[in-house]
Amino acid sequence: MEDRAQVFNKELENYLQILNIPSKLKKSMLYSVKAGGKRVRPILVIASYEVFQKNIKKTISTASALELIHTYSLIHDDLPAMDDDDYRRGKLTNHKVFDEATAILAGDALLTYAFEIIAKDNNLTDIEKVYIIQKLSEASGPKGMVAGQILDIEAETKSVSLDELITIHSKKTGALINFSVHIGAYLGGASEEQLNYLDEFSSNLGLLFQVQDDILDIIGDEEKLGKPIGSDEEKEKSTYPSLLGLKGAKQYRDDYAEKAQKALEKAGIQGSYLNHIIDYIAHRDH
Amino acid sequence: MEDRAQVFNKELENYLQILNIPSKLKKSMLYSVKAGGKRVRPILVIASYEVFQKNIKKTISTASALELIHTYSLIHDDLPAMDDDDYRRGKLTNHKVFDEATAILAGDALLTYAFEIIAKDNNLTDIEKVYIIQKLSEASGPKGMVAGQILDIEAETKSVSLDELITIHSKKTGALINFSVHIGAYLGGASEEQLNYLDEFSSNLGLLFQVQDDILDIIGDEEKLGKPIGSDEEKEKSTYPSLLGLKGAKQYRDDYAEKAQKALEKAGIQGSYLNHIIDYIAHRDH
Repeated sequence: MEDRAQVFNKELENYLQILNIPSKLKKSMLYSVKAGGKRVRPILVIASYEVFQKNIKKTISTASALELIHTYSLIHDDLPAMDDDDYRRGKLTNHKVFDEATAILAGDALLTYAFEIIAKDNNLTDIEKVYIIQKLSEASGPKGMVAGQILDIEAETKSVSLDELITIHSKKTGALINFSVHIGAYLGGASEEQLNYLDEFSSNLGLLFQVQDDILDIIGDEEKLGKPIGSDEEKEKSTYPSLLGLKGAKQYRDDYAEKAQKALEKAGIQGSYLNHIIDYIAHRDH
Repeated sequence: MEDRAQVFNKELENYLQILNIPSKLKKSMLYSVKAGGKRVRPILVIASYEVFQKNIKKTISTASALELIHTYSLIHDDLPAMDDDDYRRGKLTNHKVFDEATAILAGDALLTYAFEIIAKDNNLTDIEKVYIIQKLSEASGPKGMVAGQILDIEAETKSVSLDELITIHSKKTGALINFSVHIGAYLGGASEEQLNYLDEFSSNLGLLFQVQDDILDIIGDEEKLGKPIGSDEEKEKSTYPSLLGLKGAKQYRDDYAEKAQKALEKAGIQGSYLNHIIDYIAHRDH
């Protein structure tokens, strides 16, 4: 996973390096993009494509655009008016290094630039570009990720049921994870039937990712995570463990992992990197 | 101008009304979109198209997307971390009615939804969609409007030359105005040569718009403007009048108006609504 992330990082950074824009804006955009992370979404795009095709150059613009959108969402999420976080992955957040105005604008710029990258990629046909932009704007906009953010903020001040929690996650983080898998497989030439099973796979993978996040906030290693643990409990946040207990949460994790594997099987996919990613996410320690 | 804005407003609002999203997010998006404004950009898209074609249904998604992007930029611009404005057009700003987090997210949602609207419009071909999205993302992203915002903030703490002022305006407001005219004419079927002259027209129109804005901040009617005058001088902001005096600024205004008319002439366009808009903007009182 780390090797794949490193190869991809060069492509991603290059999209920003070539920009001829005000230096403060560029530095701020680059800071958060280079701050790292697991690159789960781009790796999912590429891995889903590789189930069907070899030459991955068709996937790079979409994988990069997706990571830019993920990065913008983190920058805005960390703002004082939102989660008010000073650190992310052990590094100062964007608005702490620069200032709030710059952080807001860097986020806006990353989001907008994501669509430019796709619209200008010569490796894609116009039909593909339009399909990608339709799906990406849906997944990241008011019906998808932004809806999840609003619901998540509202959930902070009330207790939510497990169903509501799943709805929040399916929008806040699930929408982009679904997009990753769907679009990689689409570009690779997956059949309609395979795309449906892959949507089932990615829905379970997204929830798996989230439940493990909640579990790590209780039993994780602060150094590996790059952030303090116990923050969910401190904020009295509804999580899988708070609703189901730690044992119950682990049971859900194992169920999601199994359902994800089954969905891949139904799509006729075995022994692929996607199968491996399920285990990676279920057992990740950061 | 007001009649045209009213007809367009219904189309614009409908794009938001059909969204099935969390109610707070929808209310916040609708609040700022309905807060009004002159709808200069969408009217320019439609008027530029009408120079060449009659049935304007091809322009509605782009005109709407553009106004959503303009609206998002105002919401973010008004935030405490940016211009910290409590009122716009005589109404409370988004973050004063809702809260900062919601205002940030409403802006993000409007920006993202703009691309979805274009990508899903059945009146456009895929070639047109890709071209529109390329141009719109350039005009509103890190090379265009967002660059202008950063430069504008930086200019607050130092004195700038007239050339620097023009660069800021050409990005902060000019990029979207250029896009409006260019894309309307493109969809209408303008020739390459006409598009070049229309770019010259819109560059002058954008600066005309801005110099009149600066002039109105000195000699405008507070009631008609819906905001107090004299704020530029109070903030010691570099403007056309501060650099050239009021008389000099008016001279620039008249020059821009004349250059804009000449550019239309060179494109072979006379007696159109675009010709009328030059006068409207040069003599507007709000």
